[in-house]
Amino acid sequence: MRPALLLMACELFGGDTNKAIPPALAIEVFHNFTLMHDDIMDKAPLRRGKTTVHERWNQNVAILSGDVMLIEGYKLMMQVDDRILRQVLDIFNETAVGVCEGQQIDMEFETRSVVDINEYINMIRLKTAVVLGGALKIGALIGGAPQTDADLLSAFGEQLGIAFQLQDDILDVYGDPEKFGKQVGGDIISNKKTYLLIKALELAKGEQAVELDALLSAAQLDNAEKVAAVTRIYNDLDIRQHAETAMQTYADKAFEALEKIKLPLAHKQYLHDFADGLLVREN
Amino acid sequence: MRPALLLMACELFGGDTNKAIPPALAIEVFHNFTLMHDDIMDKAPLRRGKTTVHERWNQNVAILSGDVMLIEGYKLMMQVDDRILRQVLDIFNETAVGVCEGQQIDMEFETRSVVDINEYINMIRLKTAVVLGGALKIGALIGGAPQTDADLLSAFGEQLGIAFQLQDDILDVYGDPEKFGKQVGGDIISNKKTYLLIKALELAKGEQAVELDALLSAAQLDNAEKVAAVTRIYNDLDIRQHAETAMQTYADKAFEALEKIKLPLAHKQYLHDFADGLLVREN
Repeated sequence: MRPALLLMACELFGGDTNKAIPPALAIEVFHNFTLMHDDIMDKAPLRRGKTTVHERWNQNVAILSGDVMLIEGYKLMMQVDDRILRQVLDIFNETAVGVCEGQQIDMEFETRSVVDINEYINMIRLKTAVVLGGALKIGALIGGAPQTDADLLSAFGEQLGIAFQLQDDILDVYGDPEKFGKQVGGDIISNKKTYLLIKALELAKGEQAVELDALLSAAQLDNAEKVAAVTRIYNDLDIRQHAETAMQTYADKAFEALEKIKLPLAHKQYLHDFADGLLVREN
Repeated sequence: MRPALLLMACELFGGDTNKAIPPALAIEVFHNFTLMHDDIMDKAPLRRGKTTVHERWNQNVAILSGDVMLIEGYKLMMQVDDRILRQVLDIFNETAVGVCEGQQIDMEFETRSVVDINEYINMIRLKTAVVLGGALKIGALIGGAPQTDADLLSAFGEQLGIAFQLQDDILDVYGDPEKFGKQVGGDIISNKKTYLLIKALELAKGEQAVELDALLSAAQLDNAEKVAAVTRIYNDLDIRQHAETAMQTYADKAFEALEKIKLPLAHKQYLHDFADGLLVREN
């Protein structure tokens, strides 16, 4: 998705997509660097159905390979014209720092008892959304976009990224088990502080709050029972509705930014449809 | 040492050292990123007498902080004039990949039974020497050096770096315990494949070879006894002399490159003395 967005942004402004291929690869190599290091941190045994690098070889190989991939990302990203080299790298730097900060904040959330919604949105903005905005902006600059349009496309990507992550949170609980591809309720089982859980903790009062707290701290609870019980509380509190409203708010902001870009509507349709597709996905 | 070399190189060509300060910081931040990740890999409890990041906080913090430091290194390195931006970053990329590759090769040596001297020299060139060459070349370019002189200074740094590492290997065994600051014989205790051990394994024949192999595989051997026994074999084989000759060869190559730089001898004296100081150090 990330390299595709970069290429689409370049094409949107009539740029030569061949010139956008090394930076598109840079974004994908960078993304995979973050996954490789995240997988070490999460002790994940699998990635895309295959054994992770730290499991297949060892942790040191995964640390070093990730480091080299970040550098290789820079090498690929530098394959742009001199005229935009500094600006492209500034965006890449900002994106890269954002992702690392987002990951750090996400880890800190695990050991915190209270996280508020704004903190959560900022975390997913950094960890997920900034890269989408960055990829689109770099593509736009390669395509010769005026600065204001490049900024608008960046905003489009960032807001879309937040909506995308909220959709992810919703699907984890309400996705169709046959289409989702992951275990439904995985976030509930691991007490992950998603938008849904944070909102539920905020809204639950009295007995419901006591029950939710008990479910989160229960050591010996069957996974299926836990998922069912937490989902029941979510349903009672209309959590899905809250999350979908929030998601729609960010999606609306994304499409508003796209609308403002000074290009014929027809040119923007493809990107619009692509974004729509991301938000109505079932997996 | 690394930022100092960068600043000296800039000054050597009459450049404005203020302009060299952010890139000098970049080299130091980069170097500390590599140390932070190396310390995870080596499970090192201490660095410069202080608790390492992965011990003080945790491993995930050390991975992520290292990642961010690498990116911050790029941000600092980019603070050069547009005229040399691409070239400086190309050098930085090459340096960074070299260090990671050197570290990977070094780790692989641990589990290999045979390593030859050329492989070892290439490993220390990548892991240690390339950064010195890179720092000097970047400083030279900021200082406005002609391309040939910048290349000569880079060669000076790289050869000096190899000599410096060989000196380190010698000091580990033959350093004055009162001045060395580390445990003398630490490399022997850990069976580290240094220049000295590789040369000894190459030269030892018959009974001596059997004894050396036995010392390397002995599980229950007192550290002091092991250091004394291995050092005795080194002495019998003139290993110190071999290592010092090799070190001198690389030092000579370094100074030859420095000599060829088209600047008055007096201007180069400071860098010459600094390099001399590095090679006669006792710690």
